Amino acid sequence: MSKKVVTRPMSRQGQTRDDRVAVEEPLEIRVASDTVAITMRTPGDDPRLALGFLLSEGIIASAADVGTVSHCGKPTDEGYGNVIEVTPASGARLQLEKLETSRRGTLTTSACGVCGRRTIDDLLATAGPVPDGPLLDRALIARSPVILRVTQATFELTGGVHGAAVLSPLGEVLSSAEDVGRHNAVDKALGALLQQGRVPARRGDGEPAVLVVSGRCSFELVQKAAVARLACIASVSAASSLAIDLAERMNLTLATFVRNGEFNLYTHPERFDRALPQS
Amino acid sequence: MSKKVVTRPMSRQGQTRDDRVAVEEPLEIRVASDTVAITMRTPGDDPRLALGFLLSEGIIASAADVGTVSHCGKPTDEGYGNVIEVTPASGARLQLEKLETSRRGTLTTSACGVCGRRTIDDLLATAGPVPDGPLLDRALIARSPVILRVTQATFELTGGVHGAAVLSPLGEVLSSAEDVGRHNAVDKALGALLQQGRVPARRGDGEPAVLVVSGRCSFELVQKAAVARLACIASVSAASSLAIDLAERMNLTLATFVRNGEFNLYTHPERFDRALPQS
Repeated sequence: MSKKVVTRPMSRQGQTRDDRVAVEEPLEIRVASDTVAITMRTPGDDPRLALGFLLSEGIIASAADVGTVSHCGKPTDEGYGNVIEVTPASGARLQLEKLETSRRGTLTTSACGVCGRRTIDDLLATAGPVPDGPLLDRALIARSPVILRVTQATFELTGGVHGAAVLSPLGEVLSSAEDVGRHNAVDKALGALLQQGRVPARRGDGEPAVLVVSGRCSFELVQKAAVARLACIASVSAASSLAIDLAERMNLTLATFVRNGEFNLYTHPERFDRALPQS
Repeated sequence: MSKKVVTRPMSRQGQTRDDRVAVEEPLEIRVASDTVAITMRTPGDDPRLALGFLLSEGIIASAADVGTVSHCGKPTDEGYGNVIEVTPASGARLQLEKLETSRRGTLTTSACGVCGRRTIDDLLATAGPVPDGPLLDRALIARSPVILRVTQATFELTGGVHGAAVLSPLGEVLSSAEDVGRHNAVDKALGALLQQGRVPARRGDGEPAVLVVSGRCSFELVQKAAVARLACIASVSAASSLAIDLAERMNLTLATFVRNGEFNLYTHPERFDRALPQS
């Protein structure tokens, strides 16, 4: 957090006071000395952010692909901590061309068209749908934002960061993160799982199952969850049309507007079957 | 909007009904046949989105730089409408190298550091601070989210899109837009101003002065407003540390948490001076 001076101009006295705001700084992510991305993020958990980003983009598949992850330069350099370098594990072949194709290549054709359906087809061809299971408890999804909120220490103080957490089917918090960027928070949470060797997720006790996010659910968030093989996303806000289409095709259960003990369910309700009353 | 089938699993009957969700589709932006960006956006106002994006990135400076803006291909092509092509005006020299440098080049040095301070220095060197004035009414800022909300027809139906609007000092809505992406909504609103010949903003009656946004205020949103020469941002949510630092340096008045007739003011309160009670 950072301290800033703030006034409340509409109040009678327009008092000035100190305020806490969320920190935003650029992070350059390098792989084998090549810059692959610059993202505006909240400093902290940078190795996780880098790993989660590379996982989401399909450049790495698991912790086995990664050698070292560390900040470049010397602590006395200006801007130290804002460049992070990932080196591949000995013998690992990173899919660096994925980055270029995901940004430009496969989306574009000579027919001059990018479209949502083809974007989904591309992802399915690479990652395949998420495996069936596990059975999920509707009540867990309904209270997942409360579980997430407990992890959001910075939000509590600033109101200025997004949160993401990955839960097991029993509601254990396996990883969580905060960031000024929605995508970064998810990348950090997934990167932490990757460090724990829990990515790609496998079915079984204590498996990573539910990604809870504090904001809206876009196509890219579903992509991240699907690549990590998570079974469900619970979002406190809305999902886009393409997010719903992708979740349907990737066999991912998508719950939105999770608030006040209720939620909207768009895709794959079969994961709640055991929790349904017998008829 | 798109129609999706939704259930409410926590309610007694778990009813299924039709739901309206915000549409998300990829848009590829090309300049003189080169792909410069692919963004996930809500279809509609694509020319404005493209122009606002190119303006924000420093690639174009005004409508005079632009020849034509149109979707590629034939309406019968799959994905038609998801690629938009901008051709430069005859004789115009677009700053296409800006895109590359803003993503990679100038941020990085041999000292291996990107940092927020240098990012701000780069922008100041290119654009310079926003001119002083106009005088703003605190009450207008306090009610600006209500003015924005009236323009948000899609939000009203889906709850799934961000909104942005540009107001004159008297509170007239000069442009407004909605999109699943915060940045896209701002780009569309600024692109509309550019089409009207109101960018870069000049001081005077009916000038574009206040950018109202429905979400948080990041570094990039301040950058967009500053490049368009707007005097003030009013955000219903929080700002990041770097957004505040940039607003301070760019001479931009930054109001956040604009809610319930109150707001936080971090930078350049002098634009409210005339509205202060005489002492």
